[in-house]
Amino acid sequence: MRILVSNDDGYLAPGIRTLAAALKEFAEVTVVAPDRDRSGASNSLTLRLPLSLMQHADGFTSVDGTPTDCVHIALTGLLDQEPDMVVSGINAGANMGDDVIYSGTVAAAMEGRFLGLPALAMSLCSYDPQHLDTAARVAVELVRRLRLNPLPADTILNVNVPDLPWEAIRGFQVTRLGHRHKAEPVVRQTDPRGRPIWWIGGAGAEADAGPGTDFHAVREGCVSVTPIHVDLTRYTALDTVARWLDTP
Amino acid sequence: MRILVSNDDGYLAPGIRTLAAALKEFAEVTVVAPDRDRSGASNSLTLRLPLSLMQHADGFTSVDGTPTDCVHIALTGLLDQEPDMVVSGINAGANMGDDVIYSGTVAAAMEGRFLGLPALAMSLCSYDPQHLDTAARVAVELVRRLRLNPLPADTILNVNVPDLPWEAIRGFQVTRLGHRHKAEPVVRQTDPRGRPIWWIGGAGAEADAGPGTDFHAVREGCVSVTPIHVDLTRYTALDTVARWLDTP
Amino acid sequence: MRILVSNDDGYLAPGIRTLAAALKEFAEVTVVAPDRDRSGASNSLTLRLPLSLMQHADGFTSVDGTPTDCVHIALTGLLDQEPDMVVSGINAGANMGDDVIYSGTVAAAMEGRFLGLPALAMSLCSYDPQHLDTAARVAVELVRRLRLNPLPADTILNVNVPDLPWEAIRGFQVTRLGHRHKAEPVVRQTDPRGRPIWWIGGAGAEADAGPGTDFHAVREGCVSVTPIHVDLTRYTALDTVARWLDTP
Amino acid sequence: MRILVSNDDGYLAPGIRTLAAALKEFAEVTVVAPDRDRSGASNSLTLRLPLSLMQHADGFTSVDGTPTDCVHIALTGLLDQEPDMVVSGINAGANMGDDVIYSGTVAAAMEGRFLGLPALAMSLCSYDPQHLDTAARVAVELVRRLRLNPLPADTILNVNVPDLPWEAIRGFQVTRLGHRHKAEPVVRQTDPRGRPIWWIGGAGAEADAGPGTDFHAVREGCVSVTPIHVDLTRYTALDTVARWLDTP
Repeated sequence: MRILVSNDDGYLAPGIRTLAAALKEFAEVTVVAPDRDRSGASNSLTLRLPLSLMQHADGFTSVDGTPTDCVHIALTGLLDQEPDMVVSGINAGANMGDDVIYSGTVAAAMEGRFLGLPALAMSLCSYDPQHLDTAARVAVELVRRLRLNPLPADTILNVNVPDLPWEAIRGFQVTRLGHRHKAEPVVRQTDPRGRPIWWIGGAGAEADAGPGTDFHAVREGCVSVTPIHVDLTRYTALDTVARWLDTP
Repeated sequence: MRILVSNDDGYLAPGIRTLAAALKEFAEVTVVAPDRDRSGASNSLTLRLPLSLMQHADGFTSVDGTPTDCVHIALTGLLDQEPDMVVSGINAGANMGDDVIYSGTVAAAMEGRFLGLPALAMSLCSYDPQHLDTAARVAVELVRRLRLNPLPADTILNVNVPDLPWEAIRGFQVTRLGHRHKAEPVVRQTDPRGRPIWWIGGAGAEADAGPGTDFHAVREGCVSVTPIHVDLTRYTALDTVARWLDTP
Repeated sequence: MRILVSNDDGYLAPGIRTLAAALKEFAEVTVVAPDRDRSGASNSLTLRLPLSLMQHADGFTSVDGTPTDCVHIALTGLLDQEPDMVVSGINAGANMGDDVIYSGTVAAAMEGRFLGLPALAMSLCSYDPQHLDTAARVAVELVRRLRLNPLPADTILNVNVPDLPWEAIRGFQVTRLGHRHKAEPVVRQTDPRGRPIWWIGGAGAEADAGPGTDFHAVREGCVSVTPIHVDLTRYTALDTVARWLDTP
Repeated sequence: MRILVSNDDGYLAPGIRTLAAALKEFAEVTVVAPDRDRSGASNSLTLRLPLSLMQHADGFTSVDGTPTDCVHIALTGLLDQEPDMVVSGINAGANMGDDVIYSGTVAAAMEGRFLGLPALAMSLCSYDPQHLDTAARVAVELVRRLRLNPLPADTILNVNVPDLPWEAIRGFQVTRLGHRHKAEPVVRQTDPRGRPIWWIGGAGAEADAGPGTDFHAVREGCVSVTPIHVDLTRYTALDTVARWLDTP
């Protein structure tokens, strides 16, 4: 089994190293990841500039681009053989709720959509992760299951793991993405030279985080597994919009 | 009515100028847009660095960030009064099918999701647009309808307009996003100094572009209107994944 | 007479617009300038990535590169005819003393060194310039003199103009660069997400700013004109270093 | 003895690792270097954005900035104790002739000017270096001599080493910077999406490369040692410019 590994924290991040090492136990692993932290990159793709690749002594390849660039390049020509699966992460910090649209970790997994096998986006729910090995073990477990028992094509699984020892994990839950309140206000500051600068504010508080959501599962000590789709069509609104368009 | 206008081609692009001018005829328009071309930016958000804003003589505000940054900042503190709607574009080039996940134009509209009113992402289907005024007229028409007859909250409309004179437009169609084949191979080159460089390949050919898709509507000379959602949960897979997780 | 105009504040800055307008009165002016503020760019040259150019309605060309890139491209192929002179600026803020090594304004002028005619770097000594017209008039005056009475090839003139009305200028002085004390300490902060960030500290206080220096001339209300060279060899140290190398 | 080491090829480059290892034999070495290749950065300083630092397992500190940023931050607050010397490199490729004004390697050394002890910029004259150890030995030898027999303050030594085994080096020569012809023409291409792009052309051919120049010394198999100054004043032109200014 061949697995392509990427992330958005950069190829030097402990998360991707732990993940690659764990998957190497039973699969042929290729790592193609950003050369630096690209958190918040979403599905951005570098269209105007060429990319440079660097092969490192440990076999990892870094790219001066986004997570999406990395997986895109790997799948469209860099790799001699197409991998069977894309696993992204382990991100240092949760990717839950509305925020997943900004996530480079999730985007890297989404970019594996052409493979016909599920892709996994792995996140550990702490900005100062203590239990990367727990998340790695979750990844190994999910990959093992996917091999035995494949899910439908195009199923991207967004996986959030509580930052706990493996023994403390209270199971796996399928979840939907929760929702947050509006983001915190933009932070206006003045730089040391007296110029105004603006920082994007923090994520909003959880608004819809009850049972069934990713927020809730993680809070309960469970691994949250959310099926994600790449098709942004809001199918349930097609009829409404059709009628609306017919109303002059 | 207050409308926030943004785009991903940058505040100097003809598309945003035509759009803002058309909307100003009947609404209070504020333009907050990237200071340069940010095509392909997707929903990327600038979290590690502060942003600088520049107010221009024409009243436009430019930001050295992504489309998402622009709308985020506008809605979380830059604007004194919350706008009633976000309209993004007019993009020079279509945003259809799978590619919408890379689109900064669509991302800017998605970022307006907290407003409770639909947001519009406007694209003109030509990289060398001749009929920006057609797309502007479409935008005006859709905004007018939304005002009279609102759609449910969170409905983002992704609108693609054929590059034709208004008279040649054969109507509006509600559509789903089509699908493309896998992207073209990465383009390997050598730069003038002899270093290898890699360019992201072109979009794949249309694979699922029959009636009902955005590709088909535009090819027929119709305005394609696709309802988009921000929630990436694949609800239809929840049961399958639940069962799958229960199978050891 | 053909003059190439560039700067480091970007092609939209009022300084370059005032300068170009003044020179157009008697010369054929071509503007090739960075697409955004590139203050502090020094002589940096973009070697790893290609550059994009944009032609604007006012005839200005912007480049997504450094001041040095702009002049380099202009002189090595962009312009059909080689210009007779490069004039850079008008910078919003002084470029005096040791700081000139960081200056993109001065670098743009230095890059004109192949032309065999002097190049001018124009700066107005205020971060909130009131009298750009004074600096423009100084530029016109110096260009006029250079045409009548050329200076030796390779003479780059670094010109700093007090931010005063023309009538208040107390003459032109040839000067040497003064020196500053060590820069202010780096400014350590924490960003709104709790990460440590570091800002380059302010320039040091003037240490050698007596008569004969650029600092002194400007403080006296004079235009400071400093001949600059591009050859960094410290000729006066050649013998000392030769002896030093001979001492085992 | 405390030595600050930086470069412009990035903290992962073999050159800086060889250099740091060699200097560690007899000095306390601190490495603060760019997080990626910043060749061509010249003395550029990051004034508008904050910088982030990363401490690596090997004790190296990387900065998401320029070589000048690295040395500036180190000397203005990052280091608890001021180093006695700055050594920059070992650059993969020569830094000779007019090109030194673009060099980040030389710039890093220049930024050490406040220390009162000479700084060294070390380059190995090959883009595919085979003998980094030769250049490291040269650095060690020069540092040793500087300790025994200091040179005047502000003397920056720009050192270019032929890519030869140590035994094949034919001695050390003090040199002046040679000169090149005008750079090669800009390279116009079309990117895979059909957009025009421009690459900075190659360096010009050697024009002034006879005995006494750095070009000549290296061609002869000698280590070229060029004293460089930071003061850009062209002292020899002061009188000429004074008379010129007096001529109306």
